[in-house]
Amino acid sequence: MSEKIIDGKAIAAEIKNELKNKISNLNKRAPGLAVILVGDDPASHYYVSNKEKSCAEVGIVSFKTILAANCSKEELISIINKYNQDPNVDGILLQLPLPAALKNSSQEIIDHILANKDVDGLTTINLGKLVVGSKDAIEPCTPRGCMELLKRSNVNCSGKQAIVLGRSTLVGKPISLLLNAANATVTMAHSKTQNLEALLAQADIIVAAIGQAEFIKANAIKVGAVIIDVGINAIEIDGKRTLVGDVEFTKAFEKASLITPVPGGVGPMTVAMLLANTLELYEKHI
Amino acid sequence: MSEKIIDGKAIAAEIKNELKNKISNLNKRAPGLAVILVGDDPASHYYVSNKEKSCAEVGIVSFKTILAANCSKEELISIINKYNQDPNVDGILLQLPLPAALKNSSQEIIDHILANKDVDGLTTINLGKLVVGSKDAIEPCTPRGCMELLKRSNVNCSGKQAIVLGRSTLVGKPISLLLNAANATVTMAHSKTQNLEALLAQADIIVAAIGQAEFIKANAIKVGAVIIDVGINAIEIDGKRTLVGDVEFTKAFEKASLITPVPGGVGPMTVAMLLANTLELYEKHI
Repeated sequence: MSEKIIDGKAIAAEIKNELKNKISNLNKRAPGLAVILVGDDPASHYYVSNKEKSCAEVGIVSFKTILAANCSKEELISIINKYNQDPNVDGILLQLPLPAALKNSSQEIIDHILANKDVDGLTTINLGKLVVGSKDAIEPCTPRGCMELLKRSNVNCSGKQAIVLGRSTLVGKPISLLLNAANATVTMAHSKTQNLEALLAQADIIVAAIGQAEFIKANAIKVGAVIIDVGINAIEIDGKRTLVGDVEFTKAFEKASLITPVPGGVGPMTVAMLLANTLELYEKHI
Repeated sequence: MSEKIIDGKAIAAEIKNELKNKISNLNKRAPGLAVILVGDDPASHYYVSNKEKSCAEVGIVSFKTILAANCSKEELISIINKYNQDPNVDGILLQLPLPAALKNSSQEIIDHILANKDVDGLTTINLGKLVVGSKDAIEPCTPRGCMELLKRSNVNCSGKQAIVLGRSTLVGKPISLLLNAANATVTMAHSKTQNLEALLAQADIIVAAIGQAEFIKANAIKVGAVIIDVGINAIEIDGKRTLVGDVEFTKAFEKASLITPVPGGVGPMTVAMLLANTLELYEKHI
């Protein structure tokens, strides 16, 4: 594989291996992860089964509850509470997005997860800890995965000009905070941003998390930029379903110094960081 | 006064007048603000007496506790708890900075303030609410004051390029989140930022909160920029103590379309927003 490619799959495998070794040396109960899945979205089911498989690979016990798409908020919260009280569960993951009827209540529901079981780092209190820079904060899985890719690719963020496209609570905002904490100068861009090309042209580090297929064109990118592409978009090429990122990969590859592929970039890291966060919470419980 | 000047003193007076009218129409108990002051720093005592006077002006009852500089963390927290339980207190303000011995515990101590009495908006949970964009969030006083100055000066932030210098939990980070929520494209700059001049040259809105006298030079500023200067720095000019901001005011004035003076810009707004936040919390309690 080209040295320009940040091989998320390989790095995730390396991390999983490290975790597997650590976990095999534990002399108490195994770490436990509970996953809650609402509805029948095929992509969500696919992601969850992936997470279960990865848990098994490294020695984390996984628990799963599947609720019908039309379940009530109270029903969902009661499952969260069950896992909150379960001493074998170290982390609780609510698979997102929730079905339409619950979507607007997502944050309210997530906030029922106990702070010390918030494996996804998405509770309001944990996001506050990221703002404050508390050592106690759990870094949300995808943002942490992006930072880990930079770190393991020897990218020193300090003083670098970074742009984050997308300002979701799930990815854009926490990655901005983490890059800021790593001393990058971060610009938060979004759908209302007017001078995106000029901003991209200056960026040493580009993090794209907008979910729009190949939105970022190679000609806007600075030569030597590091590109972290969080987007996973399904498009049809010659009648065949293909996954692409938010960045026009083939041409951007020519200009970038480092770039994550889609698939095989950030995706596998999200799962690896979920496992890492589970172990981190386990260590607080044991 | 020049039309270029954002007259914080006049806008704060206008806001206080609005608050006074609202409060005079309340038919229950008056809103109450408790201020806790630790140590004998003259500036802190001055700020606190200013806040007390402003409370009296608009009809807010103020309570004050002054603790010795060498008070223990536990003593301070017990005072917070007393005010947490007091039904006449709607907001609790811990005057910052704390003395050296307590400074590293500031966030931990602040987090003892009940969410519904967090008038300064600096508890971890409230900062999380700012990230999430919760309607329930209290906007920290100085950042809210900056946003209010922009709003009352008819500056539409949407799509504008904004730069925030300084990344404190008190000012820099929350103002970045508020500008982002107002659809500005925000760059968070700080001491490790390398290309500050180029970034300043692009900025439509500059928020300076670094506490370094006249650090930002006029030649770096774009013609027509809006400048919000949060810094208040005491320097000596011809042997006389003078307050200046983080921006080289006289020259920057020539290039800016709007600029806050120091003093008389952001400073009075911090107090006005403290009063506004007290009333906002009062309305939740009544």
